[in-house]
Amino acid sequence: MFEFKIVHEKGAARTGQFKTPHGTIETPVFMPVGTKGTVKTMKPEELKEIGSQIILANTYHLYLRPGDKNIAKFGGLHKFINWKGPILTDSGGYQVFSLGLGSTNKTTDKLVKIKEDGVEFRSILDGSKHFFTPKKVMEIQHNLGADIIMAFDECPPALCSKKYAKESMERTHRWAAICKKEHAKLLKKSGKKQALFPIIQGGMFEDLRLQSTKFMSDLDLPGIAIGGLAVGEPRSTTWKIVDTIIPHLPKNKPRYIMGIGTKQDIIEAIKRGIDMFDCVLPTRLGRHGTAFTSTGNLNLKNESNKLDEKSVDPKCSCYTCKNYTRAYLRHLIMEKEILGIHLLSLHNIYFLHAVVNEEKKKILGK
Amino acid sequence: MFEFKIVHEKGAARTGQFKTPHGTIETPVFMPVGTKGTVKTMKPEELKEIGSQIILANTYHLYLRPGDKNIAKFGGLHKFINWKGPILTDSGGYQVFSLGLGSTNKTTDKLVKIKEDGVEFRSILDGSKHFFTPKKVMEIQHNLGADIIMAFDECPPALCSKKYAKESMERTHRWAAICKKEHAKLLKKSGKKQALFPIIQGGMFEDLRLQSTKFMSDLDLPGIAIGGLAVGEPRSTTWKIVDTIIPHLPKNKPRYIMGIGTKQDIIEAIKRGIDMFDCVLPTRLGRHGTAFTSTGNLNLKNESNKLDEKSVDPKCSCYTCKNYTRAYLRHLIMEKEILGIHLLSLHNIYFLHAVVNEEKKKILGK
Repeated sequence: MFEFKIVHEKGAARTGQFKTPHGTIETPVFMPVGTKGTVKTMKPEELKEIGSQIILANTYHLYLRPGDKNIAKFGGLHKFINWKGPILTDSGGYQVFSLGLGSTNKTTDKLVKIKEDGVEFRSILDGSKHFFTPKKVMEIQHNLGADIIMAFDECPPALCSKKYAKESMERTHRWAAICKKEHAKLLKKSGKKQALFPIIQGGMFEDLRLQSTKFMSDLDLPGIAIGGLAVGEPRSTTWKIVDTIIPHLPKNKPRYIMGIGTKQDIIEAIKRGIDMFDCVLPTRLGRHGTAFTSTGNLNLKNESNKLDEKSVDPKCSCYTCKNYTRAYLRHLIMEKEILGIHLLSLHNIYFLHAVVNEEKKKILGK
Repeated sequence: MFEFKIVHEKGAARTGQFKTPHGTIETPVFMPVGTKGTVKTMKPEELKEIGSQIILANTYHLYLRPGDKNIAKFGGLHKFINWKGPILTDSGGYQVFSLGLGSTNKTTDKLVKIKEDGVEFRSILDGSKHFFTPKKVMEIQHNLGADIIMAFDECPPALCSKKYAKESMERTHRWAAICKKEHAKLLKKSGKKQALFPIIQGGMFEDLRLQSTKFMSDLDLPGIAIGGLAVGEPRSTTWKIVDTIIPHLPKNKPRYIMGIGTKQDIIEAIKRGIDMFDCVLPTRLGRHGTAFTSTGNLNLKNESNKLDEKSVDPKCSCYTCKNYTRAYLRHLIMEKEILGIHLLSLHNIYFLHAVVNEEKKKILGK
């Protein structure tokens, strides 16, 4: 379990296979986000049909509601949400900070208090107080039972000082080591099969990123993630950081870049040898009436779509594009009809899977 | 086209077949409502899969947005909304009044002015002024191109005086005659195939209802509808009125009772020899987290569902009941997740189709 096999390579790019308890993931792979245990609007069968292999769910949200212990009573997240494929849960680290802090390193914010042993935060739902430690986050993710779980990390703001980035990174390293130990203990106890991925941090500072890459690689876990990017910095900085990291990553382990997922970002990531990526954009944009297309984003609300008989993207062969005109989709979106949001979300996820498939073909030389 | 064949009878109840340009409808039939050109949350394929044979759409809403003339440019409503089965459009009469008046017969309301030749009303969307005449309503419904279209009627409030009910009914009779004439003219011009159904009115007054039944039956159109019921009167009154009407209806034509659609109402209607019914309840209740079940309505929001591993209705075999627990559906509804609304809407429509199928079996003696 959790072996990663590289199948084809072209330059730094590669295709691979990652074995999980709920099936083998063919990489590179775009992972749709199902924050609260549902990829917004999508039935599991629809996800499968459009080629989604693995979905994400959020520890922070599911811990608060309906509660990880309640989900465990139903035999874990797969059964609770009726998704038979692999699942990855994030660690809640990103949410604890992004929902509590702004884009500065002001850690005195009322909603979040960072301590050596963990983070105190207030629920965005009811203001109740909670405390996440590395051990607690492992326990929650064991209760949820995803195939891939993430180490608890602090995701510092893009604009933080080097001093703060270093402090934060070192704490994240100590937390990752605790997570590894606690995870092993919980696995032994439960007999479950879950892969833990650590998360490289270090802000926008190349030397810190190198330190973090070395530390996390040395933990020798089944995969490795790059966190703390796409948090407000210019994309040129994002890729400079990634380029710093990549040569120092273990080659034979899946590499996951967190929170990345536009067409251009996916192409850039795959080119550099990244294997996994996730993003909320397909469903978030769908909800707001925007569709990805091969010629850029299309805002269905625009008057120009009112009598447009074309599909969203004439080059796309998803269910939405095969069956509906821009005019009808515009009508549904203008009327706030759920079907419109659903059809656009489906198209947007399909579109990103298609982008990945195109890149795969290039790697395979097809 | 538009022949109605009675297949089986048991007492007053009957099963039948009604031929339309988009397929034969097996009656009795529950027709889900797609007000704005979408049965809320449902893909056409899902409707087909759960046994929906014909859907409704609303003239009033589609006339205002996106406009019947725009829909005509797309080859009519079937093509515009991607529904290949039969469609019925109402006449907009009910909406003009229900969205403009309260439950009294105060016709001086600012939003609606009834005149001999039609009704002036203001759009609920932007307050713009519009005038519906019987001819205009025929023209709109010809543009929409549904298989079954409805004559323009006035639907008086449940509490109106007999004097007003009579005046209103007589006007509706004159309008129905104009509709018939205009419809024939338009059919001749376009070569389209659409069946016009007139609507029996007369308020809660049995003698008026008898007059209206005679008048509308004498128009000799392919089907006939009973309107102006379930508008606030007690159900005992509803069925008393229906019982007054039924013996005087042509036997060999489909009978449609408008706006009826709970389990009990459907059973009562079928028993009396009604063939068609529609109701917005399945999707409206679904949107609010309520499911029909064989033991009554279930409000998923109730705390008691939080850890409930049962399906919504253990006796139901719809997609929702086969795949999801009450606990997960509750979670989705509490989180305002679209998938929850969708799954409950699907279940509720399926549930009413199943009620009809049960009643059919009784008629067939199975």
